[in-house]
Amino acid sequence: MSVPVNLGRAVAKSDEIYPLQASRFYPKEQWYVGAYKSELVEGQTLARTIFGERVIFFRGEGGKATAVSNLCVHRFMPLDEGKIVDGRLVCPYHGYAYGEDGRCVHVPTGGAPSPHARLRHYPVREDGPFVWIWTGSVEGAGEVDIPDLTDIGLSDASDGWTTAVAERLHMQARAPLLVDNLFDLSHIAFIHVDSLPGAGGLAMIPPMFDRKSDRFRVGRYVPNFVAKPDTVIGDTMPMIVGQPVYAALLTDFYSPAVINSSGPWANELVDGDQPGESIAKLNFVHLITPETENSTHYFNVVTRDYHPDDESLSARLIAQTDRVRREDVGWLEQIEKIADRMSAKGEISSKADEGSLKVRRHLRSIIEAELAVSAAE
Amino acid sequence: MSVPVNLGRAVAKSDEIYPLQASRFYPKEQWYVGAYKSELVEGQTLARTIFGERVIFFRGEGGKATAVSNLCVHRFMPLDEGKIVDGRLVCPYHGYAYGEDGRCVHVPTGGAPSPHARLRHYPVREDGPFVWIWTGSVEGAGEVDIPDLTDIGLSDASDGWTTAVAERLHMQARAPLLVDNLFDLSHIAFIHVDSLPGAGGLAMIPPMFDRKSDRFRVGRYVPNFVAKPDTVIGDTMPMIVGQPVYAALLTDFYSPAVINSSGPWANELVDGDQPGESIAKLNFVHLITPETENSTHYFNVVTRDYHPDDESLSARLIAQTDRVRREDVGWLEQIEKIADRMSAKGEISSKADEGSLKVRRHLRSIIEAELAVSAAE
Amino acid sequence: MSVPVNLGRAVAKSDEIYPLQASRFYPKEQWYVGAYKSELVEGQTLARTIFGERVIFFRGEGGKATAVSNLCVHRFMPLDEGKIVDGRLVCPYHGYAYGEDGRCVHVPTGGAPSPHARLRHYPVREDGPFVWIWTGSVEGAGEVDIPDLTDIGLSDASDGWTTAVAERLHMQARAPLLVDNLFDLSHIAFIHVDSLPGAGGLAMIPPMFDRKSDRFRVGRYVPNFVAKPDTVIGDTMPMIVGQPVYAALLTDFYSPAVINSSGPWANELVDGDQPGESIAKLNFVHLITPETENSTHYFNVVTRDYHPDDESLSARLIAQTDRVRREDVGWLEQIEKIADRMSAKGEISSKADEGSLKVRRHLRSIIEAELAVSAAE
Repeated sequence: MSVPVNLGRAVAKSDEIYPLQASRFYPKEQWYVGAYKSELVEGQTLARTIFGERVIFFRGEGGKATAVSNLCVHRFMPLDEGKIVDGRLVCPYHGYAYGEDGRCVHVPTGGAPSPHARLRHYPVREDGPFVWIWTGSVEGAGEVDIPDLTDIGLSDASDGWTTAVAERLHMQARAPLLVDNLFDLSHIAFIHVDSLPGAGGLAMIPPMFDRKSDRFRVGRYVPNFVAKPDTVIGDTMPMIVGQPVYAALLTDFYSPAVINSSGPWANELVDGDQPGESIAKLNFVHLITPETENSTHYFNVVTRDYHPDDESLSARLIAQTDRVRREDVGWLEQIEKIADRMSAKGEISSKADEGSLKVRRHLRSIIEAELAVSAAE
Repeated sequence: MSVPVNLGRAVAKSDEIYPLQASRFYPKEQWYVGAYKSELVEGQTLARTIFGERVIFFRGEGGKATAVSNLCVHRFMPLDEGKIVDGRLVCPYHGYAYGEDGRCVHVPTGGAPSPHARLRHYPVREDGPFVWIWTGSVEGAGEVDIPDLTDIGLSDASDGWTTAVAERLHMQARAPLLVDNLFDLSHIAFIHVDSLPGAGGLAMIPPMFDRKSDRFRVGRYVPNFVAKPDTVIGDTMPMIVGQPVYAALLTDFYSPAVINSSGPWANELVDGDQPGESIAKLNFVHLITPETENSTHYFNVVTRDYHPDDESLSARLIAQTDRVRREDVGWLEQIEKIADRMSAKGEISSKADEGSLKVRRHLRSIIEAELAVSAAE
Repeated sequence: MSVPVNLGRAVAKSDEIYPLQASRFYPKEQWYVGAYKSELVEGQTLARTIFGERVIFFRGEGGKATAVSNLCVHRFMPLDEGKIVDGRLVCPYHGYAYGEDGRCVHVPTGGAPSPHARLRHYPVREDGPFVWIWTGSVEGAGEVDIPDLTDIGLSDASDGWTTAVAERLHMQARAPLLVDNLFDLSHIAFIHVDSLPGAGGLAMIPPMFDRKSDRFRVGRYVPNFVAKPDTVIGDTMPMIVGQPVYAALLTDFYSPAVINSSGPWANELVDGDQPGESIAKLNFVHLITPETENSTHYFNVVTRDYHPDDESLSARLIAQTDRVRREDVGWLEQIEKIADRMSAKGEISSKADEGSLKVRRHLRSIIEAELAVSAAE
């Protein structure tokens, strides 16, 4: 566990309000979660808008996940209700059939399909419980990897983790509002006062900022934390009830697509106020996929490195994260409704907003770098 | 009662169609009814859009009504579901607290609030059954008073009046359509033929125009009116049933916010055709508050100077005014739906439209004066 | 029956995508079906938007159908709920009354109506089961006749035909999508696979193109067709079950307002593969009336020259056409939803699209001719 430092003072400037860039509302040269693996059933289509584009997922020959543009090149019919026949996507209108790579391979009325008859094909990867999709340029896909989530139990290479998959929520609000929300925990004392009783106090602990290489971390550290039995933490981390531990409430930015909130991590207490060996780790992992400029797919999984067979615990964790996420979504949608007023009025920040302002600047630098590359090309 | 004169001939010009001014759809340097006093409960917020601005009303320390802009300066959260704690308005997201004057007085994560952290404060006055709000410029508020409604029983200074408060209706139509409606009573014979049986005949009496100082009055006078027992008027003004009186159906423009329709006023009959002492006065007072350019809050109270303890009479008057108003609202909303066609086609008026055309011109002169002042500043 | 020729090869160009002309989305100097005669009941109004204009139909003195613009010239009230009194249309707001020709003939508050007080009058004709309306310029109405539908049993001059009238469907999609649909029967094997079982094979027969004077015909010909008893065709044309006939599945373009799909026509078989005398004719006649640029009234009648008294047959034919039409409407509405993407992407056609591409070009030439005339005027 790295050494946290105190947060400095920050005030938002007018150009730090959403969208952070007029020409691109969120980083695009990225891998995003397009679907849970479990959503993609062989023989069925899955239509979803991602970063403003209508995409259709399906499993081709051998069950391999693929994603293509959702609009038949013949007469513009959406392919939502296309049939999958022998791993090919068949248009419901006149029966044009497409292969995994988007090429038209059959026209029922006869003749060879035109070589121009092809749907856009999107790079897709399956890892952990996710189907990842690349939303950026064709060239970029090969140079960037999907975010490495091994240390929170979400890659095929992870070991010793138990994963509980929560429902995908649809949020009628722009993605950066969710980033803000996740990096300013002081809202727990207000929005989640009923669903996370007692957690408000922890959230009010002054946050520490810790930039590790290319990842942002905002943490709240409690060197002498004692969990009580009838609390949210006591219920979900029973092994630390009644004993003092070093607790860390961390918010980690893995990529624009992934933010992890530890729930918390508990370490042994050494020398009265220092972290020792890890006792237990709990993670609420937030997968953020822009649907459009003003709406977001909000995937979520809970991972832990203890009690792998406790299905009741998994169920309680899912219930907890869904209750909390629905509250957040409801409130962020209130902000989105008045988003046209954001630019008209200044935003006033305080010391506690340091983390969310820093991550906004980081998001903006990612966008700026993306735009610089595409301008140079 | 002043001397009425015959109405002249009027034809609408193309620039007399709504909105009367492209840059301002209705007078703005005005006091409007923001709410009934009874709507504003201590410890609760009341969110309402007025003249296109999102306003939130609440009662501060000591119960005093106040109104501020409805958007937290921290992260743009609407304050509709804010809590009132000790007379302060608390944002539901991160708990920023605001005083009656809109200043931020508390930030839960600590530190003194920025002096720039303040909501816009709107001048507010309580009088009669109303909470009035000033929608104009900051300078204008001190120079203009709320409309004087003493003579129709609607100020704290009124005496001898009984008031019945009707429901606020929300009308999806621009305010001037309601002004038009109230000044052309000939629609009673059509729209209200079932709810005001027999009143159509009165409404068809040629109207007289009477401009008193800065107030417009359009009146219909019946020098030898005899109310029958089983009519709307006979039921609500029982003291004039069977005896000839001088009846006056008046439409009085108090301000862009207030129009009164007498229901009627009954005077003793003198010299066979002249008005003598007042017998009874009944008023249907229309309080018009623009919500947006295309929608309107429609408040309404019925006042009378007789039978103060007759609660059944109050209930019947409220039932009558609500039935009539719902009919008007329904039809005006039909016009609003096709409002984009108003400018494309000429409007053709007849002699009976004199009153509404004159009041339109008056409204426009008020708007022009407002714009001239703001241009000079 | 004329001699069909093989279809050539066609590829759509980017300017052949809808709308075919930016300035006019469909031919306008035309007669369209405004209503079924049966919809127009004496003493009632029928409000309908046609080619973007709000029209109100009613029957004037003597029951004659008429159509006028649906907006009172006095205060812009829509006339949907106007009353018909003595063959006059009375505005529900202040009672202005209009005659069959749209002239205001009465103002309740008195005085002679202004000569400028008139609604736009649309030319109207009644023929067959239809009320036709002219949507073009005033000059054009006299020069063009309603489409001659005598040979498919739909004019007052038709003889020996039985007509079954189907429900008017409202389609939230542009009219040309329906034209496309009707001229490319290969969709039967996909969209209608369940409602027209077995018909997919017929639809896949290569179409032949036959331009007769000013009418387009795309046909599919089966020289040795044997209907089976338990099929759609066997059920509705029982006289041809079990005997070989020359069957013709024809799609005939009568005007932008009328397309007929034979269902089929059966002729005697001569010389093993030539058509002889007609045995029976069945027609599904599609009446296409643009409501707006993006929505369409879809009228439909089924006519046949056999079994005039078989009401059960009429009922089965209506059930069949309504099932099929609802399927088409549902799918075309899917395309309309993404219509903003039509221009962004190329459309790729195959040999089977020849008919629909030719009729598109014909539609465009009609529009171009209309615009050339109006530019010259």
